[in-house]
Amino acid sequence: MTLPGSNDIIEAHKRIGTYIHRTPVLTSKSINILLNSRLFFKCENFQKVGAFKFRGATNAVLQLSDYEARNGVATHSSGNHAAALALAAKLRGIPSYIVMPENSPEIKKKAVKGYRAKITYCKPTLEARKSELEKIVIKTGAIFIHPYDNSRVISGQGTAAKELVEDYPSLDTVIAPVGGGGLLSGTATWVKSFNSKIEVIAAEPEKADDAYRSYKSGILQPSLNPDTIADGLLTSLSELTFTIISEKVDDIIRVSEETIVLAMRMIWERMKIIIEPSSAVALGAVMEKPDRFANKKVGIILSGGNVDLKNLPF
Amino acid sequence: MTLPGSNDIIEAHKRIGTYIHRTPVLTSKSINILLNSRLFFKCENFQKVGAFKFRGATNAVLQLSDYEARNGVATHSSGNHAAALALAAKLRGIPSYIVMPENSPEIKKKAVKGYRAKITYCKPTLEARKSELEKIVIKTGAIFIHPYDNSRVISGQGTAAKELVEDYPSLDTVIAPVGGGGLLSGTATWVKSFNSKIEVIAAEPEKADDAYRSYKSGILQPSLNPDTIADGLLTSLSELTFTIISEKVDDIIRVSEETIVLAMRMIWERMKIIIEPSSAVALGAVMEKPDRFANKKVGIILSGGNVDLKNLPF
Repeated sequence: MTLPGSNDIIEAHKRIGTYIHRTPVLTSKSINILLNSRLFFKCENFQKVGAFKFRGATNAVLQLSDYEARNGVATHSSGNHAAALALAAKLRGIPSYIVMPENSPEIKKKAVKGYRAKITYCKPTLEARKSELEKIVIKTGAIFIHPYDNSRVISGQGTAAKELVEDYPSLDTVIAPVGGGGLLSGTATWVKSFNSKIEVIAAEPEKADDAYRSYKSGILQPSLNPDTIADGLLTSLSELTFTIISEKVDDIIRVSEETIVLAMRMIWERMKIIIEPSSAVALGAVMEKPDRFANKKVGIILSGGNVDLKNLPF
Repeated sequence: MTLPGSNDIIEAHKRIGTYIHRTPVLTSKSINILLNSRLFFKCENFQKVGAFKFRGATNAVLQLSDYEARNGVATHSSGNHAAALALAAKLRGIPSYIVMPENSPEIKKKAVKGYRAKITYCKPTLEARKSELEKIVIKTGAIFIHPYDNSRVISGQGTAAKELVEDYPSLDTVIAPVGGGGLLSGTATWVKSFNSKIEVIAAEPEKADDAYRSYKSGILQPSLNPDTIADGLLTSLSELTFTIISEKVDDIIRVSEETIVLAMRMIWERMKIIIEPSSAVALGAVMEKPDRFANKKVGIILSGGNVDLKNLPF
């Protein structure tokens, strides 16, 4: 198991620089007043495909040799990684094969189709997804790009935090949401190498808290019936992300469903930007522990903005 | 009747510069591809109080002499002008008196209260609003600041277009929505003085088309039971705004309710920013007449982002 280092993130940033958006960092005076803190929001909801996932997928796809890439890439995903990988493959001019649960939201199916991926639908279980993917990989020779258990993907995700601390080097804390741990691993790797005094905090839904339980116990814990509105954070850590997070992350804060919705609403109403529930979890951590962040300069990674407008929690 | 000129807009911009946000101009590759055009969105949804109205209200409040300002300012409004005037007065340290229809949305009442305005509720008719306001002005000596029938307000609103063409001087067209005509008058005054070859187009809901009927007939027409989701555009032109618009605006395009909702959804989904229906009318004009804007560089003023999240049209 090779852990990605800060050099890998620097290289990733050079590699993907012309493909990604350098997303803005926004602030909100009224949220700062309400929470008695100074928050800096890194807006990956404005990233291509509407989520940070495009960074990691692009880095992984571009690092394949022409020989490796010749049969395309494949993954299973119901969400942002599917669209990210499909677009990255399209930009490289190679095919992509995406296994999607048949109950994926129509809007996500449409996005992936729009990037010309070859979609295979399967039953909505992890087993069905894995076995369908295996068949496709054997048949096509495509390379499987895991959404987070992959050093190149993690290095790509770390470029968001790199941009954030380039723009605001004097942050006290950086908060990222944690699901499978790709974004958090990349974030922690970059921030700690940049300045080990900057705290790296993970935010996780209380109702999908496998990372918290793993981190606190020191033993990788499985996900137990995760059930949260933050649908991007249902996945569990892998050995790779667990190792990085155990070593580099300062704490994990759990966020209730109620706080996630309040945080999402606060960003929509005060900042006039659209974020998905998974993104709101990071602000939710500040709302759960206001004393801890009082008067601190806190970078918050807003991971994405893909939300079903017909199914809002307000 | 003194028409505001470009010098007034330059002076207004200097006067309000430290109070307002210089809002960003955003673009969307996917919307450009869909509509075969090059669109530049001036994001007044990110302005203070969530709408361009803060520019005009601040300019009007700051231009009062200390003597004139001593008893505060007053207006009647159910919407963004109320919040804008209340905040402008608070920043100058003078009282504000706002007459609001009793059926105004809770969120707007709360915003106005938050800026420490003294609110009087009245029956939701124009007559009730006017007569209640008159009583307050007589009793308090506050100065009435009309939301658009006021040269200083218009000059303030024109600063949004000034920033837009400063950032993108080679635009072919600028589109602004029209309700009472304050934003449109300020926009046309600035743009035509900057470069008379840039087209200025107004966008108006089909179901509240008094500006269209007035413009085409040459005679100021009253509003006839306006009924549109674009609740910021229910008002009618005044003599002042009608005069400016007749002289300087190149055309008015009417937009159906269906297109307003489609345009709003397109901006929410593709750009991940929150705009109110009134803002969507300007993009709606491009969607109604795609050939007219094909391959043109079009500036679009997104007027505001105050929308009731519990009552969305999707």
